[in-house]
Amino acid sequence: MLNNKMTELLKIKYPIIQAPMAGGVTTSKLVAEVSNSGGLGMIGAGYMTPVQIREQIREIRQLTSNPFGINLFVPNEFKVTDNEIKSANQLLNPIHQQLNLQPKDDFEIPIFNNVLEKFNEQIKVIIEEKVPICTFTFGIPSREVIAELKQSNIILVGTATTVREAVENEKTGMDIVVVQGSEAGGHRGSFNDGDQESLVGLMSLIPQVVDNVNIPVVAAGGIMDGRGLMASICLGAMGVQMGTAFLTCVESGAHHVHKEAILNANEVQTVLTRSFSGKWARGIKNKFILEMQKHEALLPDFPVQNTLTHDIRKTSSAQNNQDFMSLWSGQSPRLAKNQTVDSLIKNIVVEVEKINFNI
Amino acid sequence: MLNNKMTELLKIKYPIIQAPMAGGVTTSKLVAEVSNSGGLGMIGAGYMTPVQIREQIREIRQLTSNPFGINLFVPNEFKVTDNEIKSANQLLNPIHQQLNLQPKDDFEIPIFNNVLEKFNEQIKVIIEEKVPICTFTFGIPSREVIAELKQSNIILVGTATTVREAVENEKTGMDIVVVQGSEAGGHRGSFNDGDQESLVGLMSLIPQVVDNVNIPVVAAGGIMDGRGLMASICLGAMGVQMGTAFLTCVESGAHHVHKEAILNANEVQTVLTRSFSGKWARGIKNKFILEMQKHEALLPDFPVQNTLTHDIRKTSSAQNNQDFMSLWSGQSPRLAKNQTVDSLIKNIVVEVEKINFNI
Repeated sequence: MLNNKMTELLKIKYPIIQAPMAGGVTTSKLVAEVSNSGGLGMIGAGYMTPVQIREQIREIRQLTSNPFGINLFVPNEFKVTDNEIKSANQLLNPIHQQLNLQPKDDFEIPIFNNVLEKFNEQIKVIIEEKVPICTFTFGIPSREVIAELKQSNIILVGTATTVREAVENEKTGMDIVVVQGSEAGGHRGSFNDGDQESLVGLMSLIPQVVDNVNIPVVAAGGIMDGRGLMASICLGAMGVQMGTAFLTCVESGAHHVHKEAILNANEVQTVLTRSFSGKWARGIKNKFILEMQKHEALLPDFPVQNTLTHDIRKTSSAQNNQDFMSLWSGQSPRLAKNQTVDSLIKNIVVEVEKINFNI
Repeated sequence: MLNNKMTELLKIKYPIIQAPMAGGVTTSKLVAEVSNSGGLGMIGAGYMTPVQIREQIREIRQLTSNPFGINLFVPNEFKVTDNEIKSANQLLNPIHQQLNLQPKDDFEIPIFNNVLEKFNEQIKVIIEEKVPICTFTFGIPSREVIAELKQSNIILVGTATTVREAVENEKTGMDIVVVQGSEAGGHRGSFNDGDQESLVGLMSLIPQVVDNVNIPVVAAGGIMDGRGLMASICLGAMGVQMGTAFLTCVESGAHHVHKEAILNANEVQTVLTRSFSGKWARGIKNKFILEMQKHEALLPDFPVQNTLTHDIRKTSSAQNNQDFMSLWSGQSPRLAKNQTVDSLIKNIVVEVEKINFNI
């Protein structure tokens, strides 16, 4: 079914990539199950240490002999002053109080050079462990990093939210590009075009990208089933990357409160916010988003704001309290189901075969 | 090709509706040519007087014997104070000066009762002239109006931007519902859900609506060719409504500056603004949008703001100056072509037949 250049490059049966959701969602079981079912399982390694990455790669290899991939965050330069941190913390203080949290002053504020160093160590592990596929979000790594990975025969996949970003991905040597529509949940992958301007729906984005690049295009954003897969193929994509659809699966490591929030949400309940991390991301509207909304333009950049909200998110999760958790979701929560990965993928295959074109 | 309940109801050959763009775009030639080519031509009659409507219906009947339709704006209650008008005019004054326009104080400010009366007169003409299809934007007309139209065997088509709005359309007796994705150009058709929340991409919106209504669903927003039509069908729609694709056609009455602006634009250049009319609408970013951006939340509601900007838009058009014109466009301007309606529709049919699913 639907074999093409993309499935050949990735050596997978179905053109379905499980989105690399960072923050504990992509358990080894989830990743391995996706790959065992004929899709491509992905480790969302953005926040992981090199040691954690190595451990998880080895764990997954125990569970599957099929290809899987890993995703990293390309570091973006950022600067932050003590004053900015102070004011951001002042904005967060009422929330600390609601959660009975002591406002901390002693956490380690990220420094760009350290972030870059960590990224290079992550790359090193991926090469050493011979992960067959490496994907990137938030930008394109340096020529040196790309050359190094290519020398190790690792297939490289970039992320784009606009035609210009997709063309740049192709130019720098990416083998495949994932185009993220405005429907997508979680962080926006944009790195070149404005935050608002780069919110292009997939119906518009896919064909315009396909007309301007020669590498395979994978569609991401709001795709949940065989209908979304076939629509993406019609628009010129060679496959899909699905996040929310896998997040609510049995094997995903997402918090049960997060899963339930998606299963109970409708299409108008997700919004874009930068209050959790300093980067724009789509999630289900909750108390945190609403309380921070009027300040969000002023908050420090990623990953600084992410560090500042760490305790809040952690405590809220520990209390099973959805009010202050980042409930990332795409715009199709009505289509989410709590099912096994195997069912999700089997259902897609059945649906695709059933679509009656009546041409 | 693609015959279904929707093409049967509308008695058309291809499941393609030309979007009812108001403001002079939908010339009789455009409407008739679309219907003659097998699609459904539509008069965008929102701003037209009953007399103009009657004239155009009769003119179109000279040019085609195929079905065509007409679209009306459902009046929404609005209130405006003299002070609000004064401050809105103050904001517009620098633009009046740039265009050497005398700021007027004597124009007729719309009053809701008059708008409603005009709407009822428009309905009367449509019934008298036996237009076979009537579509609505900005809401759902009263039970009385719906009953009257149904008694005359007119097929009714509503507009929705969310599942809830689609369900309401079905409940009130609409025969078909057009779902407008966030990709769409021109005015947002939302009437029940918040402006930001109702910006749902078609990849998410179509299947979620299809799962919740029984009437045929037509997709609108960023659809320009056979790829978009087939993608919409895969997602569960029975057809498409295309605006921008017809706007740049030879037969459209859009200003040549508007057509050229679309033909030269890319997917990141359209933005949502309420500065032109008081209702959110998507168009190509220009000087007017940028200058008014920081004030747009404070401007009077539709149609008051639309009246206040009338002279500015008219003068800018007369000077072939795109700076202050409303350059409505969906998110797919890279796919726009200056071609005849006949070519546009023929190309879609050819593309649809060429799509290779490789299932």
